[in-house]
Amino acid sequence: MSQRVLVKQLQSLPDGPVSVSGWVETVRDQKKVQFVILRDETGAVQLVNPATRELAEDAGPEASAALALTETISALATGTFLTVHGQLKHDERVKLGGVEIKVAALDIAAEALPETPIAADSGMDKRMDWRFLDLRQARNNLIFRVQTTLEHAMRTYWVERDYIEIHSPKLMSSPSESNAELFSMDYFEDKTAYLAQSPQHFKQMAQSAGFGKIFEIGDVFRADPSFTSRHATEFTSVDAEISWIDSHEDVARMQEELLQFAIQAVKDKHGAEIEELFGIEVVVPTVPFPRIPLAEARETVKQRGYEIPRTDGDLDPEGERQVAAYIEETYGHQFVFVTDYHPEIRPFYHMRDPETGMTRSYDLLFKGVEITTGAQREHRVRILEEQAVEKGLDLAGLEHYLDFFRYGTPPHGGFGMGLARLLMLLLGESSIREVTFLFRGPTRLAP
Amino acid sequence: MSQRVLVKQLQSLPDGPVSVSGWVETVRDQKKVQFVILRDETGAVQLVNPATRELAEDAGPEASAALALTETISALATGTFLTVHGQLKHDERVKLGGVEIKVAALDIAAEALPETPIAADSGMDKRMDWRFLDLRQARNNLIFRVQTTLEHAMRTYWVERDYIEIHSPKLMSSPSESNAELFSMDYFEDKTAYLAQSPQHFKQMAQSAGFGKIFEIGDVFRADPSFTSRHATEFTSVDAEISWIDSHEDVARMQEELLQFAIQAVKDKHGAEIEELFGIEVVVPTVPFPRIPLAEARETVKQRGYEIPRTDGDLDPEGERQVAAYIEETYGHQFVFVTDYHPEIRPFYHMRDPETGMTRSYDLLFKGVEITTGAQREHRVRILEEQAVEKGLDLAGLEHYLDFFRYGTPPHGGFGMGLARLLMLLLGESSIREVTFLFRGPTRLAP
Repeated sequence: MSQRVLVKQLQSLPDGPVSVSGWVETVRDQKKVQFVILRDETGAVQLVNPATRELAEDAGPEASAALALTETISALATGTFLTVHGQLKHDERVKLGGVEIKVAALDIAAEALPETPIAADSGMDKRMDWRFLDLRQARNNLIFRVQTTLEHAMRTYWVERDYIEIHSPKLMSSPSESNAELFSMDYFEDKTAYLAQSPQHFKQMAQSAGFGKIFEIGDVFRADPSFTSRHATEFTSVDAEISWIDSHEDVARMQEELLQFAIQAVKDKHGAEIEELFGIEVVVPTVPFPRIPLAEARETVKQRGYEIPRTDGDLDPEGERQVAAYIEETYGHQFVFVTDYHPEIRPFYHMRDPETGMTRSYDLLFKGVEITTGAQREHRVRILEEQAVEKGLDLAGLEHYLDFFRYGTPPHGGFGMGLARLLMLLLGESSIREVTFLFRGPTRLAP
Repeated sequence: MSQRVLVKQLQSLPDGPVSVSGWVETVRDQKKVQFVILRDETGAVQLVNPATRELAEDAGPEASAALALTETISALATGTFLTVHGQLKHDERVKLGGVEIKVAALDIAAEALPETPIAADSGMDKRMDWRFLDLRQARNNLIFRVQTTLEHAMRTYWVERDYIEIHSPKLMSSPSESNAELFSMDYFEDKTAYLAQSPQHFKQMAQSAGFGKIFEIGDVFRADPSFTSRHATEFTSVDAEISWIDSHEDVARMQEELLQFAIQAVKDKHGAEIEELFGIEVVVPTVPFPRIPLAEARETVKQRGYEIPRTDGDLDPEGERQVAAYIEETYGHQFVFVTDYHPEIRPFYHMRDPETGMTRSYDLLFKGVEITTGAQREHRVRILEEQAVEKGLDLAGLEHYLDFFRYGTPPHGGFGMGLARLLMLLLGESSIREVTFLFRGPTRLAP
């Protein structure tokens, strides 16, 4: 591999010869001097070249080379990938990092078409059409470095605590959650395969298999016609499931510790850059996060003057924002666990508390948006069957799932969390589309 | 969460009261004494209970309780999950870890049906039907702990070197590699969606986006009718792609370092247990791995007396085993890079060496089985188009892909590796089905 120097390393290098590889962000082609902003994945640097516009009659080969270099730079299209060889010079007058490179030679690796189809301020749909160009922006690059750090910290938290990472299948013979929002396709032998809407069945299977504590970060699919800023037809789901819990509280405690650990890692590594490019301070949450029962949350929202239009007893998005505002004002906290959901608004497999009749489950709100549902699962097969029938489900379609419990399963619970939602809120972005590498929605299947 | 002690912790605890949670592996119900082997995710321990078979007429409540406990143990089905409270006692005569627990009380969390449908020696297909029971075997549990360590080490290697982790979409508007082996489904607005056969397009897109170095560990899908021990319709693919390389050699060097690092981590953490349960020594490979050009490899195979039946100039599985045997005998190495493949047997996007006419690509064999194809990619759009046309591909279906190169892409390359193949070979298993959490094949879509 070539002796490539990254832009972020330039400031710590002495003046002298250097080679940097990246792409052309802008060219300022002035009569007497040319400036090129060259960007790589770590930053941008200014290249400078004194222009040679014409040759004297007695010009030697050096002057000819200088003219050729000037003409090459004049013709550079934005997005051209090249390696520059030149002299690094520290100069505090240079705004961009206090260094510049005086060009000696350019090796063009790949030219770009001269007309770039989008600009940084193009509309979102246009930018999505040209996502690979959109991702060249420094802030977009940072999004995925933050995602990398966030995920790696979560996995490290789990691996250090002896969790097993699983990869559950996305091709299934029956729906994983419900019949709604399901992609299906022809499989071998005239069978129909369905795409997993969540790893729910399989992470519970791992408990029956005696795995104890597991996690998975993987794709899930929803044939969801929604066009909101929070929905996609394919997204990365962060899932965990643990055995021998006493209630959903054990799951909540794990999740709050996990998030504290992961957000701390992001702040440590990218806090300053996030502040610079997103204008937002990363706040590491204290534990325990505040908890509020759903009924109390609804009452609080009402007292704040907002009437929730839903009749099923749940919160709506504005209600969630109101709860979060109340928690922020009262506890100075960006997270809140909403607890004690009625079984009517929860899936059949959530365990119910015999005393209150409520499910042992929670939603986690971050900055007023739901990012997680967590619960203790019902592991007693007779009760599980009763609850499924009560919800109108067909037990025949659940046979494989119910088998897990017929042959013994310990008390267990877990959560599922949308990675893009977490990232969107952490960075103060307005849509998961901005923080997804390539968004997929009802009208978006390419590039 | 309860004060749960893991089985592996028992040996270091003093004699005294203890609570352990797990599932019943076997019950030995002798007339005078009962033994239960209780297993959790960390090991197995023997529970012991002096049997009380009948009550004297003047028996008090203690004797009644003893009788009840004896009857409970007699009725325990294999797979019942329970928590035992009792007295831990160190006794070197106990073969299983030198400790046993004298039962004081049992809390049964979930009973199991009395007839277990499979045994450890059941046929593979039967075991796959009841995979969650099959996974309770200590060796199967170990497989996924090894996988967790292997993956986490690979990610750590990359994250420490500033790679970005991506999650590329699995829903695509056009095939990612070829039209063969493609799952398709109805999408919104009468569109057809295809399941990604590899993240190839998207990891190259990340290079055009200026991400520099990326990796992805995620699902890919192949509508592959094969029934071999190495093929599946869905599997976890380990992918990396890096910019500014000089040739495929830069990719190979990264991959061999990565594998050395990851296998070292597995040996450090699980080496002794792998030796115990799989009878195999984990060998940490030295770098560089041996390299052999394909033509030389074929010649060597021929000299060893095996005539490769393929006429396309490639190796077949037996040829691969012969090459590996030769390398093992000559260099004492389990890995070998086979290089210099002719363009005819490589995809259109592999870069060709102008001097030799061969592709800048390799296959990596581990213990005689191919686990990877790696290559430098052609990033010059005109040549790329020529090579696609030469392969008979329709450029119209490649428009999104070709756009990545029209707007500038640095020289780059990468590899894709099947996680299950690597794991299968590392543990000396005979099929990827044994090392996949839930295998998917032409006749296997459940559980």
